Amino acid sequence: MTDHRFSDAQREGLYRAIHERRDVRSQFLPDPIAPDVLARLLHAAHHAPSVGFMQPWDFVVIDSIEIKRAVKALYDDANADAAHNYSGDRAAQYRRLKLEGIVDSPINLCITCDRQRGGPHVLGRNTMLDADLFSTCLAVQNLWLAARAEGIGVGWVSIVDPSRLAETLGLPEQVYPLAYLCLGHVSEFLPKPELEMVGWRSRLPLEQLLHGNTWDGAVQDDSLLSAIRES
Amino acid sequence: MTDHRFSDAQREGLYRAIHERRDVRSQFLPDPIAPDVLARLLHAAHHAPSVGFMQPWDFVVIDSIEIKRAVKALYDDANADAAHNYSGDRAAQYRRLKLEGIVDSPINLCITCDRQRGGPHVLGRNTMLDADLFSTCLAVQNLWLAARAEGIGVGWVSIVDPSRLAETLGLPEQVYPLAYLCLGHVSEFLPKPELEMVGWRSRLPLEQLLHGNTWDGAVQDDSLLSAIRES
Repeated sequence: MTDHRFSDAQREGLYRAIHERRDVRSQFLPDPIAPDVLARLLHAAHHAPSVGFMQPWDFVVIDSIEIKRAVKALYDDANADAAHNYSGDRAAQYRRLKLEGIVDSPINLCITCDRQRGGPHVLGRNTMLDADLFSTCLAVQNLWLAARAEGIGVGWVSIVDPSRLAETLGLPEQVYPLAYLCLGHVSEFLPKPELEMVGWRSRLPLEQLLHGNTWDGAVQDDSLLSAIRES
Repeated sequence: MTDHRFSDAQREGLYRAIHERRDVRSQFLPDPIAPDVLARLLHAAHHAPSVGFMQPWDFVVIDSIEIKRAVKALYDDANADAAHNYSGDRAAQYRRLKLEGIVDSPINLCITCDRQRGGPHVLGRNTMLDADLFSTCLAVQNLWLAARAEGIGVGWVSIVDPSRLAETLGLPEQVYPLAYLCLGHVSEFLPKPELEMVGWRSRLPLEQLLHGNTWDGAVQDDSLLSAIRES
């Protein structure tokens, strides 16, 4: 068995990024992101896996305050609608949450998915037609983790109407605005996800999410179960 | 501006994982994955961001040869259908490609998405209903990168009918089998994506995928463009 494992420091870097990455909304600083850093983040995204090597993503790099304000207005509309889903204390708590940093962050980045890239028959995208969207998500996570390692915060704004966002950015019809991200230096990375810290929702115990061979089966390997509890 | 950047060795670990990660189909070794390694991979996946902290994922850990064979049969069916999309040389090339390592790999892992977790109103999932699927993809990428750092290869099998896969694994109706992954030690990680190496499709130049502020706008920042060309 060949050992392709990274050094301890290198593995630590990866796990730090995974465990200390946050969805940033409130801690953005106005300082610009250095071009070499932003370039590394974009290359990281571009090196995500994609179904049939389709690379369906594009990157709309936004620094115009007019575009940011237009997107913020879309957020405000969608968020006002969303607030109606809650009542009582939960509604009050929802309205107190700051859920985006669109104007506060120096760079906004829309990672899109061109659903027609690679022609009508993309290898591996026959039975799961959304595999192109899924590939684009993998690019988002590459960028998100690389940003954490560079000390850059990222927040994903999902509270916008995708068709209005596409219109604001002038996207062609087959291009879906999958992820609208806010990027910037931050005053701090919170020790835990913000929604966990404010008591909105708790982290689920990993053991409860494990199944063995089928949904109704239990994991039989006790050494795996103890390792999961200990790590 | 506070510096939250990781050390060079830690950043190197993250970027190595991003750039040396592969979609493995042909290089699996039968050696088992150590329980502590598999536990770290599952924790990595579980620490992905999720819309509204929904954590919609579950993990079906598969080591049964019967289940593997049943899923391999689903792949064979879907792949035979897919091969009809090509003709001539491309069809011959398609048929030569090995696109899965279901039975060769010691562990198969299905990462699912429970579309009803967190109740009817998940924060941030109002305007983009598929944000739960997207969150689950982020968990896949966390695991994929952590696996690379641990020297474990991962292959995503997207050539299966999702409803037949769900039936094979006994998933409840609201649970979608987003990613069927093969995991194991490998003889080697290929220097480039296999589809690029065999000439199926080339990597697109990143510069061609950049837009400034809107789809039709160019990136105006020359220092960013040079940094992208140089990195």
